[in-house]
Amino acid sequence: MRQIDLNCDMGESFGSYSFGADHELISFISSANIACGFHAGDPTTMKKTVRLALEHSVKIGAHPGFDDIKGFGRRTISITPEEAYDIVLYQIGALNGFVTAEGGRLHHVKPHGALYNMAAVNKKLAEAIAMAIYKINRELILYGLSGSELIAAGEKYGLKTANEVFADRTYQADGTLTPRNEEAALINNETTAVEQVLKMIKTNKVMTTGGKEISIQADTICIHGDSEHAVRFAKKIYYALQEHKINIKAV
Amino acid sequence: MRQIDLNCDMGESFGSYSFGADHELISFISSANIACGFHAGDPTTMKKTVRLALEHSVKIGAHPGFDDIKGFGRRTISITPEEAYDIVLYQIGALNGFVTAEGGRLHHVKPHGALYNMAAVNKKLAEAIAMAIYKINRELILYGLSGSELIAAGEKYGLKTANEVFADRTYQADGTLTPRNEEAALINNETTAVEQVLKMIKTNKVMTTGGKEISIQADTICIHGDSEHAVRFAKKIYYALQEHKINIKAV
Amino acid sequence: MRQIDLNCDMGESFGSYSFGADHELISFISSANIACGFHAGDPTTMKKTVRLALEHSVKIGAHPGFDDIKGFGRRTISITPEEAYDIVLYQIGALNGFVTAEGGRLHHVKPHGALYNMAAVNKKLAEAIAMAIYKINRELILYGLSGSELIAAGEKYGLKTANEVFADRTYQADGTLTPRNEEAALINNETTAVEQVLKMIKTNKVMTTGGKEISIQADTICIHGDSEHAVRFAKKIYYALQEHKINIKAV
Amino acid sequence: MRQIDLNCDMGESFGSYSFGADHELISFISSANIACGFHAGDPTTMKKTVRLALEHSVKIGAHPGFDDIKGFGRRTISITPEEAYDIVLYQIGALNGFVTAEGGRLHHVKPHGALYNMAAVNKKLAEAIAMAIYKINRELILYGLSGSELIAAGEKYGLKTANEVFADRTYQADGTLTPRNEEAALINNETTAVEQVLKMIKTNKVMTTGGKEISIQADTICIHGDSEHAVRFAKKIYYALQEHKINIKAV
Repeated sequence: MRQIDLNCDMGESFGSYSFGADHELISFISSANIACGFHAGDPTTMKKTVRLALEHSVKIGAHPGFDDIKGFGRRTISITPEEAYDIVLYQIGALNGFVTAEGGRLHHVKPHGALYNMAAVNKKLAEAIAMAIYKINRELILYGLSGSELIAAGEKYGLKTANEVFADRTYQADGTLTPRNEEAALINNETTAVEQVLKMIKTNKVMTTGGKEISIQADTICIHGDSEHAVRFAKKIYYALQEHKINIKAV
Repeated sequence: MRQIDLNCDMGESFGSYSFGADHELISFISSANIACGFHAGDPTTMKKTVRLALEHSVKIGAHPGFDDIKGFGRRTISITPEEAYDIVLYQIGALNGFVTAEGGRLHHVKPHGALYNMAAVNKKLAEAIAMAIYKINRELILYGLSGSELIAAGEKYGLKTANEVFADRTYQADGTLTPRNEEAALINNETTAVEQVLKMIKTNKVMTTGGKEISIQADTICIHGDSEHAVRFAKKIYYALQEHKINIKAV
Repeated sequence: MRQIDLNCDMGESFGSYSFGADHELISFISSANIACGFHAGDPTTMKKTVRLALEHSVKIGAHPGFDDIKGFGRRTISITPEEAYDIVLYQIGALNGFVTAEGGRLHHVKPHGALYNMAAVNKKLAEAIAMAIYKINRELILYGLSGSELIAAGEKYGLKTANEVFADRTYQADGTLTPRNEEAALINNETTAVEQVLKMIKTNKVMTTGGKEISIQADTICIHGDSEHAVRFAKKIYYALQEHKINIKAV
Repeated sequence: MRQIDLNCDMGESFGSYSFGADHELISFISSANIACGFHAGDPTTMKKTVRLALEHSVKIGAHPGFDDIKGFGRRTISITPEEAYDIVLYQIGALNGFVTAEGGRLHHVKPHGALYNMAAVNKKLAEAIAMAIYKINRELILYGLSGSELIAAGEKYGLKTANEVFADRTYQADGTLTPRNEEAALINNETTAVEQVLKMIKTNKVMTTGGKEISIQADTICIHGDSEHAVRFAKKIYYALQEHKINIKAV
C-alpha cells in the first residue's frame, strides 16, 4: 500500500495574536511543523501545540525561521551560514525542551519561509542547516523542497530526508516551483490540485507549466493552515487519499 | 577539605554589542550561567560561550531571564506562573541544543535578574520554574538565593539545589539581601568582601547590617562579570580561597 | 445639547497578524487611539489607520504602551518615570510622523494597558507622561481614567484632559474600577451597560457595586474594539446616544 | 573659503549595552546621525544624544535603519518600497519628537547600513525614502552616497541633498565604493585617507583603485565612531581641514 505524509505549519499564534486553524487541521495531517518563536509562535503557544500534536498522535517537527516576527519569516535576510547554523540549532533546542517535557520525541525539522527557500538553492546555507540537525540529533528527519540543495545537504550528513511537494503550486521544467509573482504560480482549482497530488504520489511525475512531464520525489505534502479555505482543502486532499487507498503517515 | 562553587553570568553579549570579560573570568570560576537570548545573549554568543566553558572544564548552566533585552532582564514584569514555566523551559531547551551539539552536558539552571528576585519570594513562580527544570531534566541543579522560595521549590520537586550567596552584598536580619537602593547594600571594600565569603564558607554564618550573626547556607558564590573591577575581584576571591585550602569546584 | 466622545483603540494589527474590527467600528466613534508599535501595531498599520481615521473625520490620538508586543502591553513592567517619559515621547513622535505626512493633526494621547493603569495611581509616572506630552505639543489632550492621577498630572502641566469612563466595567466606592479578577468587574448585560453610560453623561453619577451613588466626570467613553461582540455593543451605545439626543463628538 | 560637513553616526547604545565614543567625537563633527531604535539606539539614548548634539551645536539628523538590532541594520532585508517608506517615516517622526521636546530642529536624514546601500542602487527604494522625507518635512536634507540613486531620488522630490564621501574607503572606476570583501576596500594608512579627503574637497576628484582619476561630489564626509581608532582618526581629519583652511560646517 502506498503511503504519504501530510505536513502542516502550526503554532503560529503569537502573544495575543491568534493565527491558523490548528485545532481543525490537526485531524487531517500526519506531521506538524511547529514555529519556534523566531518568525512566529511563542513559548506558551509552542507548549500548547506540542500537546495538541501529541494528543492526536501527529509527529512533531521543529519549524525554524528567521528572527523576524514582523515579516513572518518571509523576508530574505542576508545571513551567513554560521548564523543559519546558530539560529536553527537554537530553535530546535527550544522546541525540543517542550517535547521532552511532555514526554514526546522530536521527529523532524523543516525550515520556514525565506530560510526554506534560500536553503533550497544555496548549498552553504543548506549544509549549515543540515549540520545543525546532525549535531543536535542525527535521528531527526530533514524536510526540504523536493530535489533541492537542502535535501542534498541532508544526504551529505547522512540524515534521513523527506522531499516535500506542493498541491497548489505549479512546477517549472527544471523542477523548481513557479515563483509566486508569476501568473501560473498557484493552482486555484481544487480538483486540479488533488489530481496533481495523486499523480505525484502514484507516478513520481508532475506536469510542468510548459506541459512537459518531469520526475519528482514526493515524500510529504505541504498543507497550508492559515485560512478557512485551507481547512476545506486539507479535508479534500485527506479524503481523496483515503479513497485512493493511500496511507497518510509520517515519514 | 572544604569546597565551594564560584559561578558567573556569561554570554551576555548581543549582536554587535560586546559585554563582559568572559575570556578573562573563565579561568577563575567553576560554573558559568549562560544567557539564553531573552534578557541578553544570542544564538551565536551562546554557541561560543558553551565552547569557552567546555574548553576550560567549567560547568554549564542555563541562565533564563525575562524576554526584555532593553531592560537586561532587570525589570519586574508581571507574568503568570504558567508564563514563567514556559519561558524557562524554552530557554533551557535552547541552550541545551548548543551544549548537546558540542558534546557537553547541561549542569544547572539559575534564573536571572528580576526573575531570580521574584522567584526568591514568590512561591508559585518558584514552583513553576522548578517544575520546568524537573520536566526537562531532573538531573539539573537549581541555583537560587540561599534560603529562598526558589530553593524550597527545587527541594519540593526533588531537584538538587545550590544555595547562592554574594561576596559584595550585605545581608539583613531575616537573611535577605539589603535592597540595592539602600546605602549599606554593597560591600565596596574588597578585603571585607573576601572575609565575608570565607566566614560564610567556614562557619555557615554571616554578619547582618544590624550587627547580628545569622546562619546561611553557602553552596555557590556569585562572581560578577561585567567590569574590569569584576575581574580583579574574582581573582582576589579565587586566590584567597586557594590560600585557605578551599577547593573551588562546581556543586 | 449634551455631547460625549466615543474613543476606541485601533491599529493593533501587527505584521501578518490581524487584530480588531477597525473598519467596522470607525463609523461609530469620534476619536481613535492608534497603537504606536510598542505594545501593538507597526509602521504600515499606523499609516493605514491614520488614513482610515482621516477618511472618517475621526480624531487621532497616540496610544503609547510598554515595549512588549508579546504581552500586548498589559503586563506591568517596573519602569522609571524617566523611561516612561522617553517611551511616550518616542511613540507620540512616531505616530505624529504619519499624521503629518497625511496632512492631519494629532489630537490626543491615551496611554495603553498596564501603562494606563500604573499612571492612574502612580503620581510620578503620571507626571512623566504629562511632561512628555507637554514637551512635544501642549495642544494635545490627555485621555486618562476619570479622576485619576494621570488627569491630575495633565492639569498640573496645563494640558487639556479628558476623563475616561467605561460602559462595561463596574465602579467601587472610591471611584476606581472593580479589578478584573473580581466577579462583579464586568457588566455583561448590554442594557445595563447602556444605562450606566447614559446616567454618567446626564447626571455625572454612577452606581457603585456597593449600591452607593458617587460622582464621576465623563468626557469620553471607551469602546472596545477587539471582537464581533464589540462591534455590536458599539452600535448599541451609538444609537442609544443618538436617541437620547447626545451629540457624539471628540473632546 | 571652502567648507565641508563632517558627519558621524551616534546614539548607537542600546539598553545596558554601551557603544561608540559619542562624547569624544561630538567636538570634531558638524552633524550627527542619530539612531532611531530600529537598528540601534533606544528612546533614552535618543534623548541623551539629541541633548549632546544641541549642547555642541551639532546639527541633528535621523538615522533610520532596518528593524534589526541583532544585525545592527547591516543585513540586507528584502523589504518593499512601501515598507521602506513606512519605517523611515516612523523613525524620523520618533526622533523628531525628542528634537522638538528639546527645542531643537531636525536637520537631515541619512539611512543606515544595508538600507543606505540598497537605496544607493535601487531606484524604487530610494524614491520611497525620499518621499517619506518629503511628506514629513520637505526642509530636511537627504544625505546619501555621492552620485547614488538616493541622491537622484532626493533631487526628484526637490529635497536638498548632501553627497557623502568616505575618507577610508577606496573608489572604483564607476564611482562606487570597492566592496568590503575585496582586499583594496579600506584605506588603512591615515595619511593616505586624509589626502583623499583633501583632494575630494579641493578638486572634486578621487583616484580609483585602477589608478584613474574620476569626478566626485563631496558635500559631507562620514566619520566612523565605533572605536578608539575612530576618535584618533576623526581628530586627524579635523585638524588637517583646519590647517588647510577648510571650514567644517553642516550642509
